[in-house]
Formats: sequence, structure tokens, C-alpha cells
Amino acid sequence: MPLDTLQVTTQPLPASKKVFRPGHLHPGIRVPMREIALHPSAGEPPVTVYDSSGPYTDPDTSITIERGLPRPRAEWIAARGDTEAQEGRAVRPEDNGFVSGDRLTPAFPIQHRPLKAKNGKAVTQLAYARAGIITPEMEFVAIRENLGRAQAKAAMERDGEDFGASIPDFVTPEFVRDEVARGRAIIPANINHPELEPMAIGRNFLVKINANIGNSAVTSSMAEEVEKMVWAIRWGADTVMDLSTGRNIHNIRDWIIRNAPVPIGTVPLYQALEKVGGVAENLTWEVFRDTLIEQAEQGVDYFTIHAGVRLAHVPLTASRVTGIVSRGGSIMAKWCLHHHRESFLYEHFEEICDICRAYDVSFSLGDGLRPGSIADANDAAQFAELETLGELTQIAWAKDCQVMIEGPGHVPMHKIKANMDKQLKVCGEAPFYTLGPLTTDIAPGYDHITSGIGAAMIGWFGTAMLCYVTPKEHLGLPDRNDVKIGVITYKIAAHAADLAKGHPAAQLRDDALSRARFEFRWEDQFNLSLDPDTARSFHDETLPKEAHKVAHFCSMCGPKFCSMRISHDIRAEAQKEGMEAMAKKYREGGGLYMPMPSPAAE
Amino acid sequence: MPLDTLQVTTQPLPASKKVFRPGHLHPGIRVPMREIALHPSAGEPPVTVYDSSGPYTDPDTSITIERGLPRPRAEWIAARGDTEAQEGRAVRPEDNGFVSGDRLTPAFPIQHRPLKAKNGKAVTQLAYARAGIITPEMEFVAIRENLGRAQAKAAMERDGEDFGASIPDFVTPEFVRDEVARGRAIIPANINHPELEPMAIGRNFLVKINANIGNSAVTSSMAEEVEKMVWAIRWGADTVMDLSTGRNIHNIRDWIIRNAPVPIGTVPLYQALEKVGGVAENLTWEVFRDTLIEQAEQGVDYFTIHAGVRLAHVPLTASRVTGIVSRGGSIMAKWCLHHHRESFLYEHFEEICDICRAYDVSFSLGDGLRPGSIADANDAAQFAELETLGELTQIAWAKDCQVMIEGPGHVPMHKIKANMDKQLKVCGEAPFYTLGPLTTDIAPGYDHITSGIGAAMIGWFGTAMLCYVTPKEHLGLPDRNDVKIGVITYKIAAHAADLAKGHPAAQLRDDALSRARFEFRWEDQFNLSLDPDTARSFHDETLPKEAHKVAHFCSMCGPKFCSMRISHDIRAEAQKEGMEAMAKKYREGGGLYMPMPSPAAE
Repeated sequence: MPLDTLQVTTQPLPASKKVFRPGHLHPGIRVPMREIALHPSAGEPPVTVYDSSGPYTDPDTSITIERGLPRPRAEWIAARGDTEAQEGRAVRPEDNGFVSGDRLTPAFPIQHRPLKAKNGKAVTQLAYARAGIITPEMEFVAIRENLGRAQAKAAMERDGEDFGASIPDFVTPEFVRDEVARGRAIIPANINHPELEPMAIGRNFLVKINANIGNSAVTSSMAEEVEKMVWAIRWGADTVMDLSTGRNIHNIRDWIIRNAPVPIGTVPLYQALEKVGGVAENLTWEVFRDTLIEQAEQGVDYFTIHAGVRLAHVPLTASRVTGIVSRGGSIMAKWCLHHHRESFLYEHFEEICDICRAYDVSFSLGDGLRPGSIADANDAAQFAELETLGELTQIAWAKDCQVMIEGPGHVPMHKIKANMDKQLKVCGEAPFYTLGPLTTDIAPGYDHITSGIGAAMIGWFGTAMLCYVTPKEHLGLPDRNDVKIGVITYKIAAHAADLAKGHPAAQLRDDALSRARFEFRWEDQFNLSLDPDTARSFHDETLPKEAHKVAHFCSMCGPKFCSMRISHDIRAEAQKEGMEAMAKKYREGGGLYMPMPSPAAE
Repeated sequence: MPLDTLQVTTQPLPASKKVFRPGHLHPGIRVPMREIALHPSAGEPPVTVYDSSGPYTDPDTSITIERGLPRPRAEWIAARGDTEAQEGRAVRPEDNGFVSGDRLTPAFPIQHRPLKAKNGKAVTQLAYARAGIITPEMEFVAIRENLGRAQAKAAMERDGEDFGASIPDFVTPEFVRDEVARGRAIIPANINHPELEPMAIGRNFLVKINANIGNSAVTSSMAEEVEKMVWAIRWGADTVMDLSTGRNIHNIRDWIIRNAPVPIGTVPLYQALEKVGGVAENLTWEVFRDTLIEQAEQGVDYFTIHAGVRLAHVPLTASRVTGIVSRGGSIMAKWCLHHHRESFLYEHFEEICDICRAYDVSFSLGDGLRPGSIADANDAAQFAELETLGELTQIAWAKDCQVMIEGPGHVPMHKIKANMDKQLKVCGEAPFYTLGPLTTDIAPGYDHITSGIGAAMIGWFGTAMLCYVTPKEHLGLPDRNDVKIGVITYKIAAHAADLAKGHPAAQLRDDALSRARFEFRWEDQFNLSLDPDTARSFHDETLPKEAHKVAHFCSMCGPKFCSMRISHDIRAEAQKEGMEAMAKKYREGGGLYMPMPSPAAE
């Protein structure tokens, strides 16, 4: 494979510097953050923001895709002394869809021996949390989540509606441990993914987003997929799911995981189906189990498992407008119907837990019966499955496994909250992880927007992670630009949700950007935005000259009409005339303010 | 002016045909709708959708921009016998910013004598409604709003949460009259805009959207602005505001109105300010009044009037993060402060009403103190102004003038509903017309999305019209593509709101599209979407061949994994095996369904 196919996007974002915070309990940990420097005229410190981009935006780290990322967690895991290196499962021809020669994606050059829990031990973050242990992963998360909180505490009153969440003023490592122990948060962190920078998914933490990548039988390659992963985290994806369904699945996944600082999720059923030639009814528990072990050894951090699609649920979908739209759900439904047997995922769920427990693979319990249209939202099939997912959550928890629950789908706005409420109720507050939801079906090509609306709302209501939707949803495979648009849209939804929940420090970035806007610090406005490149290029389309980036007006109004400039004049005049005194007089009901007649049509 | 600068976009949308429905009370009216034909294999009638695009999408109408559109309302207005043609105000050099020669946009070639109400009569739709008269405009609106309702009535149960609105199963002309009479809806329809196809703005009608166009001192031309208007209504803008602030304002507006089948709104203050050389403190009531008459005679359908920015409110903005961001608001604030006098708009409000009453120009009471940042949302300045707008609503209503109320701005999600609730309360249910609101400040370049989220929500809560925001907001002037993205985003928000409110027929289009999707009728899926061109081109990027548009799979999964195809297999199998019988057994609590343990963490 020629080296030039293995280039990925590096370099910091504009005006940004990666900084690292050490731990206290675990002084060796280095928690990455991004500092955005402001213009000296602002007289403000840099704005520190959450940074999911990994070493790729750190000019001090040299990136070589063929070697993979540094492996900081290796020490932490070894220090626990509860794992041992294995020979591991040998790669088989069916793992890569029986391709060979030129069509075979080469194996990742460095093969590490996989770790596994020693004789039946639980090596999950949940097990440690329950045992009262604060792991380095937990402290890492605590520091990571606290961005700006100390600053915010002094500066602002908390505000927001959190619908019963318990967001603390300050995140302590003990708080993280407690949330994980209660099952209200997960830290997806396979022991075979030491390249990971730990993160938490839970209602009392920042709302996270996931980006999907993956090749398909029709199109795309390894180099493209690695770059899509790097590109997605550059713009803010907190986790990445590799949904590959074509050939070379095993090898492509290896390249992705060895280069991923974020948790990687998969749907093992897709690869299992490839192994049986794509014929759903030929799937067996043995093939599926083998695939779980294969992927757990590679370091997959969470598995979507569609164990909630039970034989008895399938008839509930028969009169739907769009039937079953989840691939995993439809595969299992077909298997159940063909054999007229209960799902092997459901029947073997405890064994699946034993595997997840041995590697700390988190569950993402799949919503195989999620609605694929407005017409099918919140129907009997969807909610029957959700109840089963609640049942499975208890089983997984009993096995010390970390669990989150997948959710819809297509849901009109007035039916969104019922999803969140029911999920909280039947799944014991396990984190909810939703796709959108899409709030209308009529805009293919814009489903990042139809779903961004639903995502912001359900994030506000309590969803812990939002799975992105790109403009290509329903139409084609997303390219690099679609991935970026999807990620930015979902960062907007997640941040809007954080603001509305009253996350203590969420508004700091909004305020810094708004001050920059008001003070005509154009460069600061661009640099503080989610996508500085686009903001800058849009500005330059109308007013390309450098001079205009220091101008005290903008292209919308021109110099004479600028409302912001007039506001500055007002403020100046107010200082002269004593506007505060005027305001006081007003507040005391001075004669300037006329009493208002009560509206007649009330 | 060379003819080739005056081309606009015509031709129907794909698979679409314009149809017209006649009135019953007023048999002469022809209400346009768009029928989208489906593939014969669907076995379904065409889907009829609301059509704001005017004659431009009608191949039977020949379009000549220099002649303007046909004037169907001229007869209706004449028949009322309460107006008379005037000499009209002569165009003055300051109307076009004192430009001349080559820089002067030529006057529109055909100048009609302006109509005005005979001696003090009220010629507003509100006056007629109160008098019990169902005008052709009202019947036009009733027919237009009823799309699919007869069909829906038979097929579906109503569903949704309308927060106290009163959406009827079927819209009768009498219902329209009553809503207008109560002030809960307006039909913006200047007697000098006979080219108009009437539409209603009100909480009990479909949610509407507005697109802004307009030149600025920095950039753009007449031909561009006319095409932007045509382009905006092609994609679904229900009204268009001409926010021009540069030169040639008068003449450009003439070209726009004479070619506009939708209501045109303006902010007369912008032109008045041009007339006094851009110096806010030089504004006078006389200049403003003259501008109102000038624009009323041209046919502007609604005026944004910032009469709620009172002297006493200005100090309330002094400690804001972003001061006053409304141009009109900042101009009036500056004027008030400079003269230390009450606003001339407020003091002369009754005289403004008299002008509006004589031409039926609707009020859009401007939110000059809307928040420009998350930090400033729902503050004292904003709500003090809103209360004044409620007071002014009563005055306008007493003068038989139609009124809507403008709203924010930048508002985090948890503070949106309070805006709607307060507006309903203090403005006597006059229609609310909001800009967004933007739910976060951190995404310049994507503010169609930050605001689309807020727009969908506030539309659901009861806002009658949503003012679009384009990707260029805060950064530059929107081009043609930005206008389209803004309009489509807001059509999504409006439709999502209609669905959530439980509009009786809103879901018909979603269902038709979803059936097309499920049945792999790709062309139907494209044609039923808000933007068929984009949907088709996104599909073709991955699977360009014609054959793939009839393929029973798509690019996301490829042939083996397609969940929709598997769902079809399931349905077929179900028919064979008697899935309905299985479903019945399930519903009766048959042994297949296991009892669920109650979640522990509740």
C-alpha cells in the first residue's frame, strides 16, 4: 500500500493549542484540552474547550498511521494486575470476506497480543466502580468534563431545566465513580484499546456525539475510512462507530482502532452475516460468538447487540409503513421468523455478557425495531423492544457489564419526550443513545437538519449521546464533507442541549464568542466557532479584504447601518449621561414608562 | 438594462403540475396548488402540496419581468367600491439615495396609479372580517389551507399537542373570517399589490416562513434581488422581506413587488434613514411618514415598525453582552437617546395606523430589543418591549389594522416557551413572527441550523411565521444558494411544527414519501421531498446509474444487507404464516412474551 494513501489530517485548529492537565490521584495521566487564544485587545484569557481530536492536532506528536497511536492506558491496565496476554484468535479468511491478493487490505503492521481478564474476573469500569475503586479512566473523565467549571462557578448563576438529572457544579473523580457504579454513565474502554483517551457517556455529563463511518459492499476503502475517523474527531465526534459491511472488515477495523483515541463501536452482527455469505437464516450463535471474541480482542469499545428483537415482537411490525429499518433488527427478525425460534442473541445474552465482562466491551443495546418513519413512531413494536432492553440491562448489570440503550429513529416533536421518559423508567437510567430522531420524513438531503432538531430536544430531555445523521442519510454513503457537516450539526445539538440543561460552564464559549462579535473581533469570532474555516470563508466571500476583518461593521449592513456600532455609541453616551441612573429611575417606576392597558382579547 | 440580466428561474419542480381550485362564494378565484405525480406502481393518487411559487412554476403563464405578474386581485378590490385611484406621491431623488445616470436602477416600466381608501374608510381584511364580510382573499386562504384535509379526515386520527391552539378539521371561509376578526390571523394584502396570491399567518393555520432579501451598501443589484425573491418562493417562502439598505431602494422595490405573488414586507425605517444621509438623529416623523406613504403606494404588504423601542427601555440594554442587535432598534434607540425624547414611532403610532388602514398594510411590530446572544435572552429589555408591543396591538386593532408581533433572536431551548407564552398573553393572541430563535451562539456558518432547532420548537408552541436564517447570518450577505438552504431549513422547521401541533393533513406527505422509500420508488422519494434536485444528486453521487433508481436496495447497505428488503421478505413470510394470528396471540398475552423484571435503579 503506497504511503500517500495513508495521510490523515493533522495540525491544530486556528489559534488553538493543545494543553494537558495532570491527575491528582493518578499523577501520570495527561488530559487533553484545547485552548483558543483571543486577540490581545480582548483582555481575556484563552477559552478552553473539550478536545476529542487526539494526538492529530498536537504538533508535538508525530503521526504514523502504520505504527498507530501511543498506548497510554497500557500501564494503567497492567497495574490492575487482573488481565493476561493471550495467544488470541487467529485471523481466518472469512474475517475479511475471503478476499486475497491485491484486494486484501494488508493487516496492520504491528500485532499486539490481546489481553483478557484472568479466570472470570470482571475487568469493567463498572466492576471497579462498584468496588469503590477510582480508576485512572475515571479521574481522566472527571478532569475532562470540568472545562471551565471553576471559572463559571465564580461568574455565573446556574440556569436551565434538567428534567431531573443531577449535574454537579464540579465533577469529582468520586462523582464519576458513583455515576458509573449506578449504571447512569459508562466509560467505554476495552482493555485492548490502550490508545484510548477515556470519555464518559451519561446524563449528568456533557452530551456526546457519535459519528458513523465504514465501508460498504458498494464503495470505499481503508485509507478513506481511517481519514474519516480522524476527520470526524477533529470536528468533535466523541465516539466513532465502524459500520463496515463490505470485505476486509477485520483488517480495516484494526487500522481504525490502532489509530483511534476515541471509543470505537461496532455492530458485530454485520461481520457475522458476512461470514455466512449474507444469508441471515444461516447465522448461528457459534459464528456470532466467534465474531464477538475476534472484535473484543481487537479492542472494540462497544458492541451494538440487537438482543431486544424477539420472535414475539416481529408480528408487531407487519402493518408498519416502513417495517424494520434497522439492519441488525431486520437480520434478527428474519432469522427468528425463518427458524420460528427465539433470537439467539436473547437466549445467549448471559454468555455475551461474559465476553464483554472479560474485555470491558460496553453494551449498546440496539433498537432493532426503531421507527423508520413518522407514521411508525412510538408504536407497540418499538416500545415492546424497549421493555426487553430494560430487562437485558438488569442482566448485564448483574454481570458487571456497562450498558447504554439505543433509541429512535423517526419521531415527530410531540412524541420525543415520551421516548426519553419511558427509557429512563424501563432501563433504570442507563444512558440513552439516540439516532436523531428525525422530526419529519420529507427532507432527504437535509436529514442532518430534520434530525438535528430532534437530537437537540432529546439531548435536553436527558439523552447522553447523539448519533449523528449526515446529509446523505437515506440516499448514499457520506463523504468527508458530509461527515463534517454531520458532526458540526450534532455538536450544535449537543451544545444546545448542554445550555438548556443548565450545564454549569456550557455558556462560557457562547459568551466569549458573543463578546467577540460585539467588539468586532472577527478573528476571535471565527476561532471560537465550531467550524472556524467555514465561518472565515463565508465572511471572505462578501468582504474578502484583510482590512474588513478589523472593520467595525460587516457586510450585512455596511458602515452606516451597523446596529452593533450604534450599540457601542449608545453605551458610550450612556456612560456620559449616566445611563445607570436612568435605569434606576426606570426600575423605580419613573414617569417615563407609561402604564400598559390590559389586552382585550385575553 | 440588458434583457439577459432579467431572467428568473421558471419551470415546474420535477413531476409536479400546477392545479387551480375555484371558489364557491367567489367562483372567479383560482387557488394554486402543486400536484406531485407518483409512479404508476404506487397505485396512489398524486400528492397535493401547498404552492407559494406563483406563476413562475406554471408553464401556461409566460413570464416577463418588465411587465410584472397578472393582477387578479384588482377586480376584487375594485368590486368593494371603497378605494379610489390617486395621483400618488412623485418619486424624489432621495427615494433612490440620490443616484442618477448609469448607477440608477431604471424605474419599473409600468406605473399604476396607487389606490387609497375613500375618505377615512378602513380597507383592511380585519375591518371586513369584523363587518362579517368574507372577502375573496379569505376564501382563497381557506381553500389554500385545506390541502389534503378531506383525504386526511377519512384516513387518520388526529394526534399532536397544540398548546391551546384551535386548529379545525377543515378550514371554512367563515373560520378564516373569524380568525382574522379576532386578530388571531392576518392576511397581509395591500390594495396596491393586486399581483398577490393571498395567504394567512396565524396560529391555527399552517406555519409559514419568511425569507429576507435586499441589497446593501456593500453589494448586490436589482436583477439579483428579483431572482432571489423568485428563487425563495420556488422553494417555499410564504412571504419575502425586502431589507434593502443601499441605493436604488425605491426602484428595486418596485421591480420586486410587481413580480411578487407573495406578501412583501419592509422596514421603512431603513429607507427613511437613507433619506437623511444615514444619520439616525436626523430622522423626523415627517420623513418617516413620507416613506410609509411611498411604500404603501407601491404595494408593500407589511411594515416592520419598531415602535416598541421606547426611551425608557434603552438603559435596560446597557449591561447586555451584545447590546441592541436589531438595526431598527438601534437606530431608534440612538434617536431617543440623542434627543432624550420618546420615540416618534411610539408618539405617532395612531397616525401610522391611519396610513396602514388606508392601504391595508399589516403591522409587523418589530422587536428592536431582541437578544443578540444567549446571555441576553429573555431579559428585562426584551420583555419590556414585548409589553409595549401588546399595548400597540390594542391601538392598531382599534384602528382596524392587522397586526403580527416580531420575536427573538438568540434564546437557549429552555427559555423558548416562555417567549411564546408571554407573547400570547400580552399581545392578545396576535400572530407571533420569530427570527429563529438561535439556540446557541457558537456556530457562525451554521446558524440556519442553530436557529432551525429553535424555529421548529417555537413553531410547535404556536408561532405563526418563522423568519429564516441563512448560513451566512452574522458573516455576510446570502447568495442564491444560501437563500435556498435557509428556505429549505425553515420549511423543515415549519413542517415539523405542523406535525407536532397535529395539523390534520400534515403527515400525508411524510407517509407518501415513507411508502415510496419502503417500496424503493426512488424517483417518488426524490419528487416528494422538499428539494428533489439535491436528493437526486446525493443519490447519484454514490450510485449514478439509472438502473440503481429502480434497484431494491441502496448504497448504504448494498444488496445483501438491505433492511427494507428484509422487511419485505418478512411481510411476505408473515402473509404465508399468518402473522396476524401470531400478533393476536401476542396481544392476548401468549406464552411467547416473557414477563419483565422491574428495573432495580428506579
